[in-house]
Amino acid sequence: MLENIRVVLSHTTHPGNIGAAARAMKTMGLQHLYLINPRHFPDAQASAMAAGADDILANARVCSSIDEALQGVVYTVGMTARLRDISIEVKTPREAMPLVVQEATSQAVALLFGTEMSGLTNEETGRSQLLVNIPANPDFSSLNLAAAVQVMAYELSVAAQSFVAQAPVMQPARHEQVEGFFAHLEKTLFEIGFFTTQNPTRMMQRLRRLYARARLEQDEINILRGMLSVTTEYNARLKNRYDQESS
Amino acid sequence: MLENIRVVLSHTTHPGNIGAAARAMKTMGLQHLYLINPRHFPDAQASAMAAGADDILANARVCSSIDEALQGVVYTVGMTARLRDISIEVKTPREAMPLVVQEATSQAVALLFGTEMSGLTNEETGRSQLLVNIPANPDFSSLNLAAAVQVMAYELSVAAQSFVAQAPVMQPARHEQVEGFFAHLEKTLFEIGFFTTQNPTRMMQRLRRLYARARLEQDEINILRGMLSVTTEYNARLKNRYDQESS
Repeated sequence: MLENIRVVLSHTTHPGNIGAAARAMKTMGLQHLYLINPRHFPDAQASAMAAGADDILANARVCSSIDEALQGVVYTVGMTARLRDISIEVKTPREAMPLVVQEATSQAVALLFGTEMSGLTNEETGRSQLLVNIPANPDFSSLNLAAAVQVMAYELSVAAQSFVAQAPVMQPARHEQVEGFFAHLEKTLFEIGFFTTQNPTRMMQRLRRLYARARLEQDEINILRGMLSVTTEYNARLKNRYDQESS
Repeated sequence: MLENIRVVLSHTTHPGNIGAAARAMKTMGLQHLYLINPRHFPDAQASAMAAGADDILANARVCSSIDEALQGVVYTVGMTARLRDISIEVKTPREAMPLVVQEATSQAVALLFGTEMSGLTNEETGRSQLLVNIPANPDFSSLNLAAAVQVMAYELSVAAQSFVAQAPVMQPARHEQVEGFFAHLEKTLFEIGFFTTQNPTRMMQRLRRLYARARLEQDEINILRGMLSVTTEYNARLKNRYDQESS
């Protein structure tokens, strides 16, 4: 199942961390590295820190957006150093990794790491179905990026070794299907005038959290998008009638 | 109990690894760093990689020998990347850390990490009561030194959080008492001529493993050393009588 797991590093500043992360991955049997707009890559420092995990770096995919990096993924696990106020579910690595292994038996899973200084953006958090926090010293909680990759990969490897397969209970939608739904939803809410009284960014974040918990299936996305289409059509008919009556 | 745990890095080559190890320790609430003959320390690269764990570096104790670094320790856990052929017990971090936490409730414990290229020497292994191996990719098992410190410190922190104190079952001897016994034993075996038919180095390694499993108590060391003293005295008396009779 480790074959289905990708490590996604977003906007990494120090190339040495990319190399050290590749080494950490390889020691635990992970091999798929995705880099979203790394500041320097390829880079000699990355290769030096990889110390033999050069194949991981050579096969790394450099992406220009998070949606490109998550293409085809059904379950995205975001790392966070903070326990956010309004938030999607936050688990420890030990709680989370058996779930990740279960998901990865049949479909693509991503472990998403933010930039060194500030972690994941709200946009990136919003694309995660689960957040993981490595419990740490409250006075000094900032793990090095590659150290966090090592802890997660280690927990994943331990979980994979004690894994017993269970029957899949659902057919979760892929990342691009979920994003298609959110785009459709946001457009519709604009059209029907919902955002005249609501902050669109804030509201979309809350809706993302709601649907992240729900883990949408493909069929459900079809149903929801059907509802959105009908809403717009109804709205268009109303507007049409209004235009006709007032002309 | 984390207060009683020291991290001992032996003959570290790259100062960046010392800094990264200090950062890994601090994120998990460990603070006592001992360095045996580091190649470069203090060093700007160590400070850069510590990234805020400067207090750990400032308070680090530089030692000139392993016995100095293990002074006062009752339980030494050595890290190994290999599963040795003739060996003392080897556990996984998850198995080992609850034991470490239990020991550390009342007395000093050391986590001992060897040099980057080759790990612990036989001498260092011989001073460990337990070896720990981080299960890794058999084709690429070499974790970075600081990454190994991070995994161990993380497991220790998780174990400490779920720890329930048990009554101490024994009073283990301190490192220097155990070493005093081994020195006495070796000297005695030389005196009685035991090593004329045995390889001393090999034999002492085997005896170290035997007594590492046994976890000697202070009283037991007194008994064993008493036996050694009597043996030597008996030997001296015999020699004396022989000298007198043959004079």
